Amino acid sequence: MQTENPDFRRKVQEIFDKAAFIEDMGISVSEIGVGWCETTLAVRPKHLQQNDYIHAGVLATMADHTAGGAAASLIREAQVVLSVEFKINLLRPAIGELLRCKANTLKAG
Amino acid sequence: MQTENPDFRRKVQEIFDKAAFIEDMGISVSEIGVGWCETTLAVRPKHLQQNDYIHAGVLATMADHTAGGAAASLIREAQVVLSVEFKINLLRPAIGELLRCKANTLKAG
Amino acid sequence: MQTENPDFRRKVQEIFDKAAFIEDMGISVSEIGVGWCETTLAVRPKHLQQNDYIHAGVLATMADHTAGGAAASLIREAQVVLSVEFKINLLRPAIGELLRCKANTLKAG
Amino acid sequence: MQTENPDFRRKVQEIFDKAAFIEDMGISVSEIGVGWCETTLAVRPKHLQQNDYIHAGVLATMADHTAGGAAASLIREAQVVLSVEFKINLLRPAIGELLRCKANTLKAG
Repeated sequence: MQTENPDFRRKVQEIFDKAAFIEDMGISVSEIGVGWCETTLAVRPKHLQQNDYIHAGVLATMADHTAGGAAASLIREAQVVLSVEFKINLLRPAIGELLRCKANTLKAG
Repeated sequence: MQTENPDFRRKVQEIFDKAAFIEDMGISVSEIGVGWCETTLAVRPKHLQQNDYIHAGVLATMADHTAGGAAASLIREAQVVLSVEFKINLLRPAIGELLRCKANTLKAG
Repeated sequence: MQTENPDFRRKVQEIFDKAAFIEDMGISVSEIGVGWCETTLAVRPKHLQQNDYIHAGVLATMADHTAGGAAASLIREAQVVLSVEFKINLLRPAIGELLRCKANTLKAG
Repeated sequence: MQTENPDFRRKVQEIFDKAAFIEDMGISVSEIGVGWCETTLAVRPKHLQQNDYIHAGVLATMADHTAGGAAASLIREAQVVLSVEFKINLLRPAIGELLRCKANTLKAG
C-alpha cells in the first residue's frame, strides 16, 4: 500500500486533534502507518452504559474514527475522508480500563 | 405490538437515566411508546468532528441507544436489552442545532 | 426524485434481462418507477435450503438486484450501477410460493 | 475452539448436501475444520450479471452458507444454524473461473 502524502503522519494526527468529539471522549492516536492507525482510550465512568459495560457508541466512535485515520494516511493533502456507512459486531460486552483499536485499510481508491 | 411490562415507560426512562455516556452526551428521551422511542440532542461544539459535521459516533450512539429504548419498552421487568450489532448509513453530513431520532421495533422475541 | 434518463424503464428492464443469474433464479420485474423498482419470484424447490426455508442467498440476491434496478431508474444512459456493500436482516424464516421485493432509493448522487 | 459434536464433519457436509439452492449453484465443500469451513465454486455463465461480473448474490450466498458451515461444526447434533443477518463488502468486481470462500467462527455460544 502506498501513500499519496509524504506528510501523512501529520495529516492523520490532525484528524484527531481537530475533532472535538474525539478529544472530549479521550481517544488518542498511539501509532500511525501507511494504511493503518492505532488508538487508545483510557476508560472513565462517563464511557459506561446502564449495566456498566462500555457503551456501544464509544466503541463505534473509536472504530469509525480510527478507520478514518487509517484511510487518511493514504490520501493527498487536499483530500478528506468521510464515513458513508459502517457495521459493528459487538462480540462480547466491553469491560476494562483501556481500549485499544487498530484499523487497517483493505482497499484504497 | 404488545409489551410484557405495564410499567414500560419507567423502564425505558431508566435506560437513559442510568447510562453515563448518554447523559454525558446530552441525549434525552422525548417520547416513549410500545415498541418505539424518540430522543433529542441539542448539538454542542463537543459533538463535532474535524470538518464541523456532527461526528458519526454521535449519530451511532444516539441511534443505538434509542433502538435499545424501543426494544426495552417490550420486555419483562427482569429482562435486559443488549445490542449485538448494528449498521449505520450516513446519507448526508449531519449539520444543525437539534438532532431527533426515532426508533421503531420491527420484530420482538 | 428526478431521473436523468427519460427512457429509464427500458434501462431498468435491461438490467434484469441481461443478468444471467437473475434469469436463472427466475426473478422478474413487476413494476418500475422513478427511484423504485418491484420484483417477484415464484418460489421453486431449487430456491430452498436444508430446512425448507428459502435460502438467505435468494433473498439477498433479490434485494440486491432490485435495489440496483431502483438506482438504475435515476441515472444517465451511459452510467452503470454497482453494489459496493449491503446488509440484510432476516427477520423471520422465508416460506411461501411467491416472493415480492420492493426497493426504494433513499438518496441519489 | 471446541466442537460439541464429534461427528461434526458429517453434519457440516449435510448442510451442503441437503440445501437445494447450494447444489443448484454448484457450491461444494472443500475442507472442514472445528470452527471453520472452506468452499469452492466453478464459475459458469449462469453466475454472471449484466456486466459479466459474478453476481453479488452468488458471493453473498456462498459467504452466508460457508459461514453457516463453519458455525455448524461447533454445535450439538440436535442444534441448527440459522443466519439472522449479514453484511457484505464487495471490495472489487469478482471475475474468474473459480471462487474460493473461507469462513472462520469468531465467537460461539
